[in-house]
Amino acid sequence: MSKKYSVGVDYGSLSGRAVLVDVQTGEELASSVFEYPHAVMDEYLPDGKTRLAPDWALQHPTDYIEVLSHTVPDVIRQTGVSPDDIIGIGIDFTACTVLPVLSDGTPLCFLEEYKHNPHAYVKLWKHHAAQDKANKLNEIARGRGEEFLSRYGGKISSEWLVPKVWQLLDEAPDIYEKMDCFIEAADWIVWQLCGRQTRNSCTAGYKALWHKQKGYPSNEFYKALDPRLENLVDEKLSRDITPLGEKAGEITPEAASLTGLRTGTAVAIGNVDAHVSLPAVGVTEPGKMLMIIGTSTCDILLGDKECTVPGMCGVVEDGVIAGYLGYESGQSCVGDHFDWFVTNCVPASYADDAKEKGMNIHKYLREKASALKIGESGLVALDWWNGNRSVLVDVDLTGMIMGMTLLTKPEEIYRALIEATAYGKRMIIETFRENGVPVNELYAAGGIAEKDAMMMQIYADVMNMELRISASSQTPALGSAMFGAVAAGAANGGYDTIVDAAKVMGKVKDKVYRPIPENVKMYDKLYAEYKTLHDYFGRGENDVMKRLKKIRKDVKGEE
Amino acid sequence: MSKKYSVGVDYGSLSGRAVLVDVQTGEELASSVFEYPHAVMDEYLPDGKTRLAPDWALQHPTDYIEVLSHTVPDVIRQTGVSPDDIIGIGIDFTACTVLPVLSDGTPLCFLEEYKHNPHAYVKLWKHHAAQDKANKLNEIARGRGEEFLSRYGGKISSEWLVPKVWQLLDEAPDIYEKMDCFIEAADWIVWQLCGRQTRNSCTAGYKALWHKQKGYPSNEFYKALDPRLENLVDEKLSRDITPLGEKAGEITPEAASLTGLRTGTAVAIGNVDAHVSLPAVGVTEPGKMLMIIGTSTCDILLGDKECTVPGMCGVVEDGVIAGYLGYESGQSCVGDHFDWFVTNCVPASYADDAKEKGMNIHKYLREKASALKIGESGLVALDWWNGNRSVLVDVDLTGMIMGMTLLTKPEEIYRALIEATAYGKRMIIETFRENGVPVNELYAAGGIAEKDAMMMQIYADVMNMELRISASSQTPALGSAMFGAVAAGAANGGYDTIVDAAKVMGKVKDKVYRPIPENVKMYDKLYAEYKTLHDYFGRGENDVMKRLKKIRKDVKGEE
Repeated sequence: MSKKYSVGVDYGSLSGRAVLVDVQTGEELASSVFEYPHAVMDEYLPDGKTRLAPDWALQHPTDYIEVLSHTVPDVIRQTGVSPDDIIGIGIDFTACTVLPVLSDGTPLCFLEEYKHNPHAYVKLWKHHAAQDKANKLNEIARGRGEEFLSRYGGKISSEWLVPKVWQLLDEAPDIYEKMDCFIEAADWIVWQLCGRQTRNSCTAGYKALWHKQKGYPSNEFYKALDPRLENLVDEKLSRDITPLGEKAGEITPEAASLTGLRTGTAVAIGNVDAHVSLPAVGVTEPGKMLMIIGTSTCDILLGDKECTVPGMCGVVEDGVIAGYLGYESGQSCVGDHFDWFVTNCVPASYADDAKEKGMNIHKYLREKASALKIGESGLVALDWWNGNRSVLVDVDLTGMIMGMTLLTKPEEIYRALIEATAYGKRMIIETFRENGVPVNELYAAGGIAEKDAMMMQIYADVMNMELRISASSQTPALGSAMFGAVAAGAANGGYDTIVDAAKVMGKVKDKVYRPIPENVKMYDKLYAEYKTLHDYFGRGENDVMKRLKKIRKDVKGEE
Repeated sequence: MSKKYSVGVDYGSLSGRAVLVDVQTGEELASSVFEYPHAVMDEYLPDGKTRLAPDWALQHPTDYIEVLSHTVPDVIRQTGVSPDDIIGIGIDFTACTVLPVLSDGTPLCFLEEYKHNPHAYVKLWKHHAAQDKANKLNEIARGRGEEFLSRYGGKISSEWLVPKVWQLLDEAPDIYEKMDCFIEAADWIVWQLCGRQTRNSCTAGYKALWHKQKGYPSNEFYKALDPRLENLVDEKLSRDITPLGEKAGEITPEAASLTGLRTGTAVAIGNVDAHVSLPAVGVTEPGKMLMIIGTSTCDILLGDKECTVPGMCGVVEDGVIAGYLGYESGQSCVGDHFDWFVTNCVPASYADDAKEKGMNIHKYLREKASALKIGESGLVALDWWNGNRSVLVDVDLTGMIMGMTLLTKPEEIYRALIEATAYGKRMIIETFRENGVPVNELYAAGGIAEKDAMMMQIYADVMNMELRISASSQTPALGSAMFGAVAAGAANGGYDTIVDAAKVMGKVKDKVYRPIPENVKMYDKLYAEYKTLHDYFGRGENDVMKRLKKIRKDVKGEE
């Protein structure tokens, strides 16, 4: 039998990226990136005149189609592989990224009558204009004692599906009326590829309140939000949810001519970038947490049973690997944190020196920070520059740093910020453990994980756990390619389960970061200080951060 | 009668400055600065080979003489005033700056046999190598229940006289044996001018534990420190203390030829830079606090009765103005604080922009910070980058800042640091008031007070008090010249009391910073947050700062 290949396409916030992978080895043979022509629309619609309010973030679905028509043919061309040997394709997307469509899949923004209406477009995950809806939803859910809240850390985010659809209903009832489906972009693209609407268990579970046994919240709940939402699920969503690892369908002739793939190629059920990455590092069993470290960090962890873990982003059966509970947690300020520091706090003398040495400023700071002994700076910070996403789930918390003297140097602050994210991670892990979900090993993916050896060693030391790094620099795309191979099945040269695929195709680097006992001991002391401050400022003993934020909002005349 | 003049000489840490002042108007007609050729000796003695340990800070007494021989003739020359019309001279010094001398005033470092011994030189106020002696002294004083401790905020500083002389005794017993006097530099210079040893009530009270009614601590106390110190006061100091405002003597023929002054010109009792400044802004009565704002801030305040105010630097009868109790307090990190920020935390983009606009970076930041509304940044800081000098009296406290988000800008942090020093000042003032010492008006002197209108308005608003600024940019030298005029007396064209002199010669600028009610209201809210954090971190509820500092010292292998 000839070699078999699969394609994975990872949709990010600004571009889409395809990889072509050898199914027998997991080797990535080619990759191709396409930047969205419309990027993120946060000021105007494509008409150049329809203005968007603050906190809006839209995208154009044609960009997603263009990713397919550019990148997939490109990786085929680059490798010279025959489309006959490409057995499957998988795609993943940032979520919750959703759009209103007709029953045939046509986005409403394609219709002449709606192209000037912002609500007809894709709402990107970071569209934050539905915050008041999220607040009301949480209030009503708490008032009704809705048990689903506890699966999501007690709070539904404004980024998720229901606040977004509710905003649409409120502000554009004609579009709500007109649309046949409100659907995740991941599922919509799969639909474009195989001609069939499916809904994946990952976004349904993490973003649309679906539960494998309990289904969606009751129609009464939706009615309590707004009587017009009573039948939201049956009218605009779907109760037909497909677990990850299933085949959604096969490449249609239209999709074949778009992508260069063979008609009939297996198409996997849609997935989410973070979640699809777990098998790509070879993990398909409980106890191993994967951190996808970027501007923020998303953690994915499997468990055997459903536990209520306070302050987690979500727990979904079949949400990551079919048959397991998938737990998600996160930290809202990681790479962003270091970028803020570099932009706002690094003195000219450092910038000049780095330039002279031909070094990127992050690398320059890391080099200086690496030379510091643990505890030498006397600093400790709370990593809440962008609020706290997991454990406390509180967007109104803010950053803090203490221990400065007149001798404190920029690299000491830089390292303290990195350490703060590690302490934040440890809070998350300890909270999982305390609530019955074991965490024994760490995995990391993303650019920072690849580049920052100092930070990775700090994480290993703070957590006192071994830490492995994804071997791929395009982990989500690799994960999607793996799901493509699973959709094809073993009979077609692929795999019958993602577990089988992960054994062969999932990979980590040889280098393992192992905790160094004396470092662990020192970090235990510093973490104890972090924890005290975390609880003092985060759990209500002194709500100064919230009061300061309230004052700030009042002064600035913000909502 | 012809116009009369007086000269004031202000000795700082790196230079001495003379002014020549019109006694009838207080107008400063000329000034002259001379930088000490030996500056601060903190690495080597003048022999270039005798190395100094860390924390040492010495000076050379010849430099002080050169200040007299350069600056006084210079101001006379500049103005063309006849020495016959110069009726008096006053001098002030940073304290406690002390040296060992023979009975004729010869410094021991002038003797061939001692010139390679560091202990033969002047110990500058910031000589910090006697910290272990200060610690032992405090322990023993507490153990013996010595009541003098409460007059000094519960703690004697390593900068003061007894720790310094104890270190000398311990490390150079031959010098201790040889010296006839251990004397403040201020008093030594007065001695050089008038040929007579005097001891002023200001340094005796604030730095040498002297009390007008109770005298010095008992000989038993000194004996408890070290048996050899039992008779310290009688053998090396003096019980003959002269109140400020008295005449020490008259210019000797030698001093006349050195300075160009007339033999017989009145010489005032020595004084300290901060304390001498109070009458220079026209204040000679209780309830008006003068802040001398520099790298650190020193506050001077008069009271009618001796109150025990926790955490103050000292209370001394006749310590500032004869007949009143002089209270001193301070903040150890003010100008230093802003300099630290500018050196370590201001990004290249700001430095470039300031340069392009031809602006000093502090001015540039102030311009941006001035545009911020109160509370807009959402930040609050604790101003303890250099520990806390007053109220908490704790060098092991460190800085803290909170409320940062990813949108926080450098000018917001800069302003928060300025505001933190204002909150720290309010803590001091409230502590005075709570303990029976009224504070009703504020005065400020020093370069920052002159330049930073934003900061002064913040102080007026945070304190809800009117704030006036010294009209002189050389306030201490003016104050010394006033005391020179008082030493001469009214009969000679001067004044009989400093109160009379201050009415005419003491001056503030026309511009008064008045509290703005809406700002006061907003700052009341923010100060409440500061106070909670001040007490939480400063009064033992969470000693994290001290633990972090301990860890830092352990890691760095420091004492």
